[in-house]
Amino acid sequence: MDNTRKIFRELKADAMLTISSDLRTYLTGFPSSFGLVYTDAQETIFFTDPRYAEGAKAALKDTYINVEIAQSEESVLDFIKGKKIRRLAVPIERVTLPLYEKLHARRFRLTDSTPAFTRAMSVKSEEEIACIAKACAIAEEAYTELLGMLKEGMTENETAGLLEYLMRKYGAEDRSFETIAAFGSGSSVPHHAAGQTKLKKGMPVLLDFGCKYKGYCSDITRTFLFGKGEDSEEFVRAYNAVYDAHTIAADKIRPGMTGRQADAFARDKLKEQGLDKFFTHSLGHGIGINIHEYPRLSMASDNVLECGMVFSIEPGVYFENKFGIRIEDSVHLEESGPVSFMKTDKKLMVL
Amino acid sequence: MDNTRKIFRELKADAMLTISSDLRTYLTGFPSSFGLVYTDAQETIFFTDPRYAEGAKAALKDTYINVEIAQSEESVLDFIKGKKIRRLAVPIERVTLPLYEKLHARRFRLTDSTPAFTRAMSVKSEEEIACIAKACAIAEEAYTELLGMLKEGMTENETAGLLEYLMRKYGAEDRSFETIAAFGSGSSVPHHAAGQTKLKKGMPVLLDFGCKYKGYCSDITRTFLFGKGEDSEEFVRAYNAVYDAHTIAADKIRPGMTGRQADAFARDKLKEQGLDKFFTHSLGHGIGINIHEYPRLSMASDNVLECGMVFSIEPGVYFENKFGIRIEDSVHLEESGPVSFMKTDKKLMVL
Repeated sequence: MDNTRKIFRELKADAMLTISSDLRTYLTGFPSSFGLVYTDAQETIFFTDPRYAEGAKAALKDTYINVEIAQSEESVLDFIKGKKIRRLAVPIERVTLPLYEKLHARRFRLTDSTPAFTRAMSVKSEEEIACIAKACAIAEEAYTELLGMLKEGMTENETAGLLEYLMRKYGAEDRSFETIAAFGSGSSVPHHAAGQTKLKKGMPVLLDFGCKYKGYCSDITRTFLFGKGEDSEEFVRAYNAVYDAHTIAADKIRPGMTGRQADAFARDKLKEQGLDKFFTHSLGHGIGINIHEYPRLSMASDNVLECGMVFSIEPGVYFENKFGIRIEDSVHLEESGPVSFMKTDKKLMVL
Repeated sequence: MDNTRKIFRELKADAMLTISSDLRTYLTGFPSSFGLVYTDAQETIFFTDPRYAEGAKAALKDTYINVEIAQSEESVLDFIKGKKIRRLAVPIERVTLPLYEKLHARRFRLTDSTPAFTRAMSVKSEEEIACIAKACAIAEEAYTELLGMLKEGMTENETAGLLEYLMRKYGAEDRSFETIAAFGSGSSVPHHAAGQTKLKKGMPVLLDFGCKYKGYCSDITRTFLFGKGEDSEEFVRAYNAVYDAHTIAADKIRPGMTGRQADAFARDKLKEQGLDKFFTHSLGHGIGINIHEYPRLSMASDNVLECGMVFSIEPGVYFENKFGIRIEDSVHLEESGPVSFMKTDKKLMVL
């Protein structure tokens, strides 16, 4: 099924115009750094510049999408105007003031294409799931090799760089986001920026990472001990609580539930141990072309989970200036519940 | 000199509001992933969320900038409204439609802060130049180590990942842009995406890379031969022409010239060899917190070069399906001309 049609038929508009890279990738299946996609009831045209035209033509030759060279954004807007289009769908929240003025000057009536993209992109096709599965497999292959290379004295920053390199070596196009590598008390900050802290025996290590394959993202977090240390007993108790919270969510989530209900499985389990107040973020988020997509799995989310959605399950607890623990898998949802893409063990590991 | 004052005194506005990460970093000297900076004639407040407040307070304790916790973007806009501000300066080109509507609802008269930022950010302070110098030194240290690690069979993608890892190992916070690693005919595409092409004896290798240090970027390109090959003679002739084009530009550029005049030194030199038509991009671009900044050094640029500006000098020639060559240094401009940050040789290297 052609994604341009899938989106367009949801819209009350004469045509739609899509400029953002992620939405363009979804429409065309072809990741590109510059272009505008025009769709109306008859046709879809991918306008790009001469640098990308040949590559785009080759990639899109088996689709219904025509490739044309655009001289400028203005020339594409004039082309649309020339087609007597009145109601034009664009992702409103991404329209900047200068673009708005160009659209306004041509008297288009704007409608928002964002909701249609959000809904369509959240439920993945088999091809999309295969790409995410591969991105997950590459991330875990790299992680497994990294474990054998960790040495005392390595910095967080070097570790993050090494993990990203290994993902590239195993076939990733790129990382899917800036790798988080946190040693010791750094792990107590959920979005710790990898810095110059050096690895020492007994430290907790938190690695949150992922890569891209054919434009699709993976996302995984593992926390482990680099040898036993002073805090180990407390760490082990907290680890097992997070592990249980992850497990119950992975067992109990079903299609038809809201993001809030999903989140509550993990949060309630942590509450039994009095640890819910240390779970300071939400349970998960959708994953696809973007690392953060619809749906949200959080205390405030009314998003309804559906078969074919891909999201993270990532409960965590954080003790200021001591340590933090997060255990995250990327999963896809089936009738029977979440199916994890991950193969590496989530049980506590002491390296 | 406080950068918030430097920008604010250039504006005809009662206050300014800055949300974009790069501009915020320039104002505060503190890289951060979320926040709003408010400045009026009396004060500057950095609004951030609870996750970043402690870090921001510690980083900004010796400045005139106060840190406060913001509940939402709306709450900051209401705070500004409460101060009876009418003329509010924002970077117009970055204002999205939803933000515009919030500003409009509060009846601010908007003026554009972009030109003041562009001008101020283009001329670097000694501290900024020191950061860029360090980012350049790290990039070259990584490059030098990489040369000893290149082996037949490595992919472009793996090579790009390895170079990024080595920059992190030598102290970079991150890459400054996605590393370009192009082998063989891939080098004939100026912005080639690193792919699965494997390194073979005799191939030209083009590496375009850089890293960040304390928020500031470096940018460098080197092209060399991985052993002699069939095309080598033609390659050597073209290489020397690009080398001469680079050298003459680096010798002759002076403060007060336009970007067009700077570009012409290299382009005219290539023309002597009939190669100017293969120089399909511009000579260079400003470098700072962003990898592409003011000024532009191109055929169409009226930007006037000034002492203290930092930019790239990067002539190149590209022969479709054969090979491409680009030689790029990051430089800062002094009265006597450009001073390169780079130490690695630009003469042709056969590895």
